[in-house]
Amino acid sequence: MNWKKRTAKCGELNKEQVGKSYVLNGWISSVRNMGGLIFIDLRDRYGIMQLVIEPENNAELAEKAKELKSEYVIWCEGKLRLRTSPNPKLPTGYVELLLDNYGVINKSELPPFEIADDIETNEEIKLRYRYLDLRRHSLQKNFIIRNRVYQTMHTFFDEKGFLEIETPILMKSTPEGARDFLVPSRINKGKFYALPQSPQIFKQILMVSGFDKYIQIAKCFRDEDLRSDRQPEFTQIDIEMSFVEKEDIFELIEEFIAKLWKNVLNIDVKRPFKKMKYQEAMERFGSDKPDLRFGMEIVDITEDMKNCEFKVFSEVIANNGRIALINAKNAAHYSRKQIDMLTEFAKKYGAKGLAYIKYDKGEINSPIAKFLTKEELDSITEKANAQDGDLILISSDEKERALIILGALRLEMAKQLGIIEKVKDDFSFHWVVDFPLFEYDEEEKRYVAMHHPFTAPKSEDMEFIDTNPEKLSAQAYDLVVNGAELGGGSVRIHENDIQQKIFKLIGLKEEEAEEKFGYLLKALKFGAPPHAGIALGLDRIVMMLAKTENIRDVIAFPKTTSGISIMDGAPSEVDEKQLKELHICLIKKEV
Amino acid sequence: MNWKKRTAKCGELNKEQVGKSYVLNGWISSVRNMGGLIFIDLRDRYGIMQLVIEPENNAELAEKAKELKSEYVIWCEGKLRLRTSPNPKLPTGYVELLLDNYGVINKSELPPFEIADDIETNEEIKLRYRYLDLRRHSLQKNFIIRNRVYQTMHTFFDEKGFLEIETPILMKSTPEGARDFLVPSRINKGKFYALPQSPQIFKQILMVSGFDKYIQIAKCFRDEDLRSDRQPEFTQIDIEMSFVEKEDIFELIEEFIAKLWKNVLNIDVKRPFKKMKYQEAMERFGSDKPDLRFGMEIVDITEDMKNCEFKVFSEVIANNGRIALINAKNAAHYSRKQIDMLTEFAKKYGAKGLAYIKYDKGEINSPIAKFLTKEELDSITEKANAQDGDLILISSDEKERALIILGALRLEMAKQLGIIEKVKDDFSFHWVVDFPLFEYDEEEKRYVAMHHPFTAPKSEDMEFIDTNPEKLSAQAYDLVVNGAELGGGSVRIHENDIQQKIFKLIGLKEEEAEEKFGYLLKALKFGAPPHAGIALGLDRIVMMLAKTENIRDVIAFPKTTSGISIMDGAPSEVDEKQLKELHICLIKKEV
Repeated sequence: MNWKKRTAKCGELNKEQVGKSYVLNGWISSVRNMGGLIFIDLRDRYGIMQLVIEPENNAELAEKAKELKSEYVIWCEGKLRLRTSPNPKLPTGYVELLLDNYGVINKSELPPFEIADDIETNEEIKLRYRYLDLRRHSLQKNFIIRNRVYQTMHTFFDEKGFLEIETPILMKSTPEGARDFLVPSRINKGKFYALPQSPQIFKQILMVSGFDKYIQIAKCFRDEDLRSDRQPEFTQIDIEMSFVEKEDIFELIEEFIAKLWKNVLNIDVKRPFKKMKYQEAMERFGSDKPDLRFGMEIVDITEDMKNCEFKVFSEVIANNGRIALINAKNAAHYSRKQIDMLTEFAKKYGAKGLAYIKYDKGEINSPIAKFLTKEELDSITEKANAQDGDLILISSDEKERALIILGALRLEMAKQLGIIEKVKDDFSFHWVVDFPLFEYDEEEKRYVAMHHPFTAPKSEDMEFIDTNPEKLSAQAYDLVVNGAELGGGSVRIHENDIQQKIFKLIGLKEEEAEEKFGYLLKALKFGAPPHAGIALGLDRIVMMLAKTENIRDVIAFPKTTSGISIMDGAPSEVDEKQLKELHICLIKKEV
Repeated sequence: MNWKKRTAKCGELNKEQVGKSYVLNGWISSVRNMGGLIFIDLRDRYGIMQLVIEPENNAELAEKAKELKSEYVIWCEGKLRLRTSPNPKLPTGYVELLLDNYGVINKSELPPFEIADDIETNEEIKLRYRYLDLRRHSLQKNFIIRNRVYQTMHTFFDEKGFLEIETPILMKSTPEGARDFLVPSRINKGKFYALPQSPQIFKQILMVSGFDKYIQIAKCFRDEDLRSDRQPEFTQIDIEMSFVEKEDIFELIEEFIAKLWKNVLNIDVKRPFKKMKYQEAMERFGSDKPDLRFGMEIVDITEDMKNCEFKVFSEVIANNGRIALINAKNAAHYSRKQIDMLTEFAKKYGAKGLAYIKYDKGEINSPIAKFLTKEELDSITEKANAQDGDLILISSDEKERALIILGALRLEMAKQLGIIEKVKDDFSFHWVVDFPLFEYDEEEKRYVAMHHPFTAPKSEDMEFIDTNPEKLSAQAYDLVVNGAELGGGSVRIHENDIQQKIFKLIGLKEEEAEEKFGYLLKALKFGAPPHAGIALGLDRIVMMLAKTENIRDVIAFPKTTSGISIMDGAPSEVDEKQLKELHICLIKKEV
């Protein structure tokens, strides 16, 4: 071995070890030749240590050290001493290692960007040299958090008697919801495996098997057109329990989340979490994952406008639509241009326009004021609790759309007005419950399951199953924090006949249901226990704990929004021979 | 909710709780109507509880209980009391629950086989109804062991400062070794991801990134023709460390294995593990994963036969072959037919025939004796330490083949003679080291890496790299127990120029190396630290701890040797539409 093994790590030495000798291994972060002295910052995963070479005491070493460049890997040995000018910002800032000797273990070319916490380099370069980007402590910290999440999880669920069980990655294709990634089988010609969108059915089958507490860190795959916060493969904490009700899941997960936040951020999370019905979340916040850290709630003024002569409003009312508003406090200073931009923003959510009322220095300033009676205006002012300086934004549209538009505006205004910045260290956890079981898909002209077709209807709604399926509520629940969904789950159907009915209601013919989900239907015939579960988005939890909004900051080797891994070039072309073995060929032309 | 939630589990009640009332949930294992009394065995993951209904005290309940059948899921409540005739074999065998009430939660059809520990049902039926097979405690026990392995691992490596990091499942295809499973990309037309055969390159890149202690429970995939102990997807405990030598890996893994065996089997494993060179393992045991629980070592008699006139031997000697033997003690009673079967067995390993010498009741009985001189026979007897009653099996062949044949015969004889049965509770762990870096592939007419092409040569052998690459030893090591390989690893190449040389030696042209492994080569240019690692076969470790030789006993949803999941029918045919979206088509005819 032509190098000496470390006896300590860069980040763990401090005043208490002064006077002792150490060998360190690490990367050169910087070299500063200060004439009299040579200072080297040495970096490893644990921190940074300042090394010193004194030319007057070790001229040879000082001469040799001229070879040292950034990102060289070295070993070095020397004695720890106090710095003459300490850096209190660094944990190791009071000490330095006076070198007796060192050796270069491996050289480095000049890196394409500096390895520093805050760098301005385009993402493509950083992804191409991911191994260099990952050397930055500001990014490494996220993976240390991620590891803390894993370990907290392992311990927590083990203590609760859960069993970690692996479900297959190569499974049967059952396209329901998102697209499957497919894997051609070489041995079984013309057949394909699919990568799991979630281990949903397998975990239910584990419940049928009698494993009453299951957990898995599960890799899941969705072949969707990716948004910036999505990855083709992602990780979920997958949980299922038998002989429980949804309250048992709530209690378990709340305790787990509280433990996580305590372990990682040392924050005490308030419990129990609030529960809010889906309908209420939509009506008050225009979202099924409302951010409850601030108010600015949606106010319904449909009833107040029922005799309004403003055509835009009266038409909406005639079509059973909704007229509603939010009050952006102290935003009356918004210029015409700013309001135009808000209108453009609202249009992205389907708005045709955006009405507003400014309460500006005692005056009411609004293009629609002239169409409203004084009573109508007063009623708006009162309902909105509007005061001088406020800006009211009004949406009138098909009911759900109006709410969604205002929900989006509410978040946007909170950002623009600095409200989010003020609450950025708060965490407001809650459950959204009582989702509709079905949505009606206008395109496909059929009901689709809002969560998935294995979700149990609320038992008190079962009377509607044959007559008014759209009235069924689901025993489903989403865990929401600060406007982000951390996970979702449900009580599952454990009775064969109900599962069959639900498949029928979403338009699956008996043969289709049998072909796709026959094994689940069969399993439900052999004594399936009542069961419920949840899947938490691990990546999203880590993003929340690491306070980043970029999912690529919490995945070691992420893909771009085109599904490309820039570093290694996946996906790539493969040999014709490989394809032949798999009994497939490429379609050269678009068909 | 039309059922009562359990207040205890079936397996956890005993004498100490007598007199208290409980609600239980579980599956009916059996119902025995004993005239005066009805006994029901109720099963859950934790054990079995006997329930009793006394018709004289609760005639209504007794009448109702006629509905109960095997595998019905019920809730029940009652008071715990002592049994009049206890069953000391069961942990709960001293108590029973006298029922006040019960309800059926879910019915079951008649299961296709009985849910009992030892059942004789063909494997296909068991796999089709995997959820019922998994209800058997004898199978569930394996998953409880498997969970204990996970949890021991999580805790052990967390305490050592390892970080659990996930590497991608959708990666670049780099066929070197086994076949890749491919995943067509919809977004990137004509391109494919591959499923990882191991996270090898990614974990090395993590070392280049400065994460100096990495661990992952990694799903790996190999599209090979499956043997009975292989699965297309399998799990490995994947470990990598920077700034270490192989001895650091040995120490870490030995401590981990000792902890595992202690936690699961309460066995103290002897440490440090023996180290044996590959060459020695081959010479003495005819295997690179020798079973060291017993002797019966291979004895080389080539030198003793150098003047032998027996043509079979003299030809082998002329071709630089090997003549060697094993002494199967006390097997002289083997009949001609038994020896013929051993010859057939040896032929599976490439033997042309099998010579033997029986030392039977003072006489030497051997078809080859007449070709040997007395000195030669004496020399064999002495070298083999043969005594009356022994059977000597002699192989003469190309050197490696002769050793492999004897290695296989050694294991077979140990099985047949009951030696394995005697040592079945022993665990003999050791490391096999100093593997050759390359093997010469006669078919492809090139060197191939014996482990993988990222394995570092021993530094003292580096002089041969340009002249005699076949002389290079690898810094590779396998962990072996009782003749099974539990894992393998190596010190990796961390220098770009050496990695390039190795690629060249295995016949990769510069462009090919660049195309396949360019990102690794590049990463090695930016200050890669010395690193080493290992991958342990999790499935195999669990098999060893659970004392099963069937890999399907330790995987929840295994596939057959044809890669089929019988329960759900994966792989399956998919829609033409799905294939079109993926820009692929099926090859209908063989080409």
